[in-house]
Amino acid sequence: MSVHKQAERARAAAAELAAATRTVKDAALHAMADALLAGADTVLAANQQDVTAGREAGMSPALLDRLTLTDARISGIADALRQMAALPDPVGEVVRGATLPNGLRLRQVRVPFGVVGIIYESRPNVTVDAAGICLKSGNAALLRGSSSAAHSNAALVTLMRDALTRVGLPADAVQLVDASSRESVKELMRARGLVDVLIPRGGASLIQSVVTESTVPVIETGVGNCHVYVDAAADLDIALPIVMNAKTHRPSVCNAAETLLVHQAVADTFLPRVLPALREAGVTLRGDERVRAHDPEVLPVTEEDFATEYLSLDLAVAVVDSLEDAIAHIDRYGSGHSEAIITDSASAAETFTTRVDAAAVLVNASTRFVDGGEFGFGAEIGISTQKLHARGPMGLPELTSTKYVVTGSGQVRS
Amino acid sequence: MSVHKQAERARAAAAELAAATRTVKDAALHAMADALLAGADTVLAANQQDVTAGREAGMSPALLDRLTLTDARISGIADALRQMAALPDPVGEVVRGATLPNGLRLRQVRVPFGVVGIIYESRPNVTVDAAGICLKSGNAALLRGSSSAAHSNAALVTLMRDALTRVGLPADAVQLVDASSRESVKELMRARGLVDVLIPRGGASLIQSVVTESTVPVIETGVGNCHVYVDAAADLDIALPIVMNAKTHRPSVCNAAETLLVHQAVADTFLPRVLPALREAGVTLRGDERVRAHDPEVLPVTEEDFATEYLSLDLAVAVVDSLEDAIAHIDRYGSGHSEAIITDSASAAETFTTRVDAAAVLVNASTRFVDGGEFGFGAEIGISTQKLHARGPMGLPELTSTKYVVTGSGQVRS
Repeated sequence: MSVHKQAERARAAAAELAAATRTVKDAALHAMADALLAGADTVLAANQQDVTAGREAGMSPALLDRLTLTDARISGIADALRQMAALPDPVGEVVRGATLPNGLRLRQVRVPFGVVGIIYESRPNVTVDAAGICLKSGNAALLRGSSSAAHSNAALVTLMRDALTRVGLPADAVQLVDASSRESVKELMRARGLVDVLIPRGGASLIQSVVTESTVPVIETGVGNCHVYVDAAADLDIALPIVMNAKTHRPSVCNAAETLLVHQAVADTFLPRVLPALREAGVTLRGDERVRAHDPEVLPVTEEDFATEYLSLDLAVAVVDSLEDAIAHIDRYGSGHSEAIITDSASAAETFTTRVDAAAVLVNASTRFVDGGEFGFGAEIGISTQKLHARGPMGLPELTSTKYVVTGSGQVRS
Repeated sequence: MSVHKQAERARAAAAELAAATRTVKDAALHAMADALLAGADTVLAANQQDVTAGREAGMSPALLDRLTLTDARISGIADALRQMAALPDPVGEVVRGATLPNGLRLRQVRVPFGVVGIIYESRPNVTVDAAGICLKSGNAALLRGSSSAAHSNAALVTLMRDALTRVGLPADAVQLVDASSRESVKELMRARGLVDVLIPRGGASLIQSVVTESTVPVIETGVGNCHVYVDAAADLDIALPIVMNAKTHRPSVCNAAETLLVHQAVADTFLPRVLPALREAGVTLRGDERVRAHDPEVLPVTEEDFATEYLSLDLAVAVVDSLEDAIAHIDRYGSGHSEAIITDSASAAETFTTRVDAAAVLVNASTRFVDGGEFGFGAEIGISTQKLHARGPMGLPELTSTKYVVTGSGQVRS
């Protein structure tokens, strides 16, 4: 079926979903969880095909691990659906309201977007997560996963569609889009009027191409070239574990730190502590001249390093002369994701959090906390790095729009 | 100067504006108002050039009227700036906040977008209004007006920039973009990374081209193919004045009604009342067969009529068999702006407001109320008909984004 045809079906399903009560939507989430557990064997068999093909194609062990499903992982995915059922329904929330001077009653009410397209890579758990979040927020989902997970995704979506039908919701509320060619991504990007929003999740080049080519409105997510800045007034006993955590806790994700900036006033004391600790943890260090003066084993850093989201155990390190210089560096190279300052100076913290233009700014905390789960949102569809509509971790309310409902008794405008 | 260069300067100005206090921004608004009054003679002289050129080019009397400035109009424009100064500052508002289980303090705070580009037509008062709203919300404005108002706009912007400088804000917070060619619009649409959002205000073709071509995020505004549906359970004494108001109060604006739908159960009683009254008010009527059976003077309606935003004293009229058919008609032809039902049936009102997918849905009230001023927002930059970011009348908060500020005492993620 063409993507256009799928989008038309999604649109029809969305009209039904918009009117569905929370009770029905939650029943669907539980039915989907049940179906995944009952159908685990089919999913594992399909996943095995993908994993075998991936191994033969020379996929890296890290990617193979992300692709692989197990009974325990399927159980975790099902649990996530049940947790979504427990979250409040954003649809119908009255965001603001007033009785106008002429007696008109005005309410701004949350409504679903309608049809949400999600373009993502590799991990099959995203297929279920995204379908669940869209369903809970009343949106039909068009899921364009990676071709390397095509068999797994097809098995998962078949089970979810059956579950939807069982509770009386349209199966077309969750549809898998052909992943065998780039053409389907292009069709999604051209489906203005049918698809209400596109969310690309994945590497920088995928996101850039969607953002620049799509005529459907896009929410840009995920690219995180994040910095930790250790200020002149930093408590170095706090700075050390934060730098270690931001870089090494999970280097492959977008809220991991990629560059460490150290104020020159504390460079002499902090660099001899942090550099060996990072190296000990397996981090490859690239630094400017002043860093290398402290530690000749540090490799030279380039402009390109500063601009790179490593997503690996690599770290760029630079000494800066001032808070202003740190902010200027972040302004130049940062991707507007998550930026941290370590300082005990209230004025430095205030300047940093006001002036740094990012989705999240942190004081004396690891960048790793910028996450829907950590923020208490319960579910997350991605982390927006754009300023329109949603910025930072996106939970259920971020997958909705609003509508004004005006109720009168015959008022006309004079 | 190239648009790119102007956008870079706007970006630098935006960084200063983001940190400006409300006191300074309000002082700037008052200084701008003072400057407009003090410089009224220059503005009127410049405006006279535009009006003369417009008249020579055969501009319609209605457009000439919109273009013309007078002392009274300049005074009104200045008053609007002072009213903006009295509105609350959206920047810095804490939208939500929490202390997380690990002690981290989380705040989601409103921040300016940065640089806002506005592309608009004809009326020079928009130049001042848009500059004022952007300034109050902490955004630098790139104003691309119409070439027919170029002299007026240049005079207005010069006065506003002088006023900004006088209160210590950067003049580049308000810049006029060359209106002599379409090239400047294209440059604005390509300025991704420098311009944070583009707001086209004007005709459908301008908006469509910006929406489909821009790589800068866009907020779509204004096209309003609005309907009034008179239900079987309508109080016809309420319906009549609402239809008259929605169509004739100000036919040239986006929240005026373009199509009247009448339930067949009340067609026999309502059409003989409403059609003569509309004709009396100068409205040209185009109706389907059932309408024309009541009144042969009504012209035949075409598919194209139903799809047209007339913006004039023209009205398409159709009889529908049911509420469902009315909703289907609106779904097919509506532009998602403002849609009204006239009914005393609570269930019909509920079905209509839930099912009709528009920025605003009204029960027993004129579509003309969908307006930032009427909603009590104090200022309006346009009416969004898209679902992303803002939907319906956009006031000051809609010209902001948010940022998460996370404050800790050394927390790391485990």
